[in-house]
Amino acid sequence: MKLLEDKIATEGMAIGTDILKVDMFLNHQMDVELLDEMGREFKRLFENCGATKVVTIESSGIAIAVFVAKYMGLPALFAKKAKHKNVGDDVYSANGYSYTHGKEYTMVVSKKYLNKGDRVLIIDDFMAGGNACNALIDIINQAGAEVAGIGIAIEKGFQPGGQALREKGYNVRSLAIVDSMSDGKISFRSDDC
Amino acid sequence: MKLLEDKIATEGMAIGTDILKVDMFLNHQMDVELLDEMGREFKRLFENCGATKVVTIESSGIAIAVFVAKYMGLPALFAKKAKHKNVGDDVYSANGYSYTHGKEYTMVVSKKYLNKGDRVLIIDDFMAGGNACNALIDIINQAGAEVAGIGIAIEKGFQPGGQALREKGYNVRSLAIVDSMSDGKISFRSDDC
Repeated sequence: MKLLEDKIATEGMAIGTDILKVDMFLNHQMDVELLDEMGREFKRLFENCGATKVVTIESSGIAIAVFVAKYMGLPALFAKKAKHKNVGDDVYSANGYSYTHGKEYTMVVSKKYLNKGDRVLIIDDFMAGGNACNALIDIINQAGAEVAGIGIAIEKGFQPGGQALREKGYNVRSLAIVDSMSDGKISFRSDDC
Repeated sequence: MKLLEDKIATEGMAIGTDILKVDMFLNHQMDVELLDEMGREFKRLFENCGATKVVTIESSGIAIAVFVAKYMGLPALFAKKAKHKNVGDDVYSANGYSYTHGKEYTMVVSKKYLNKGDRVLIIDDFMAGGNACNALIDIINQAGAEVAGIGIAIEKGFQPGGQALREKGYNVRSLAIVDSMSDGKISFRSDDC
């Protein structure tokens, strides 16, 4: 998605070869017009995937997911990150690890809001190693629901998460795939998105 | 806002006299059409307040704030809840206490995204004791910015937060004010919102 790539190129900040800061428009301050356009684009990419629900992960995925859900006419749901492992038996849970915060967490979704028969469109802001997405897929499987598609705003193409999920057969579409970062320069992968 | 009151009355769950669960449409699963209408209504209430930025608090405020920001044509920003007190000198911070999680946290906002001259429209999903809102006001004051208004989805009118802020002169508008809960019945305050 050219609009997002341009935004990353002009406002994003590459630190070293691994860290990409986009907190000026995506995950702290939020450019709402851009979020709205991203919602429209994800609708275009996934409108035929038969999704019944858009599910994301708190906090930074929420702002994107609600625009996707709005354009697709679907309910949205965000998985919560619990502070402790004793989460009760009214939720599905899976363990995740946050590289940003350097600690484990437990991802939870109420059993009331994810059911057998649901086809879930997963939306998230970033994909790197794929840890958070895999925890959410685990939860979706526990519910007997299915993954209809995985929509990512920014994928770090030099990390293995996206590729591993594609090899498992998931329909992963990323609006911008960063292939490399070096000396502050960000290179994008050409994509048919 | 009748649409929100009706939703609370039909789908919300009052537990005892104090706990109101709305995770079926607001802070876990999200009714995006309702969020969109709430954004429209907050715009109507605050369009003349001269706001330059919509600021909320992660996680549950985000989904509402982005629709408000969209209708008002403003950037949005969410204050983060840090897990530790050593937050660095590139952020404004204030201490908050989460009654839901029973623990203290540190609220942070990057100094880059809140500046002298900013007029902040605060948006949040709930107001009870006012703890989170007061921490955010502290941060806004540290930045030399001003509070242009405070928009709350659901105010617990039987707790002191909203009234205390109104008495200090803040323009607090709540889309639904719950006056009491008893035997599962939820009573709303009449309001000119």
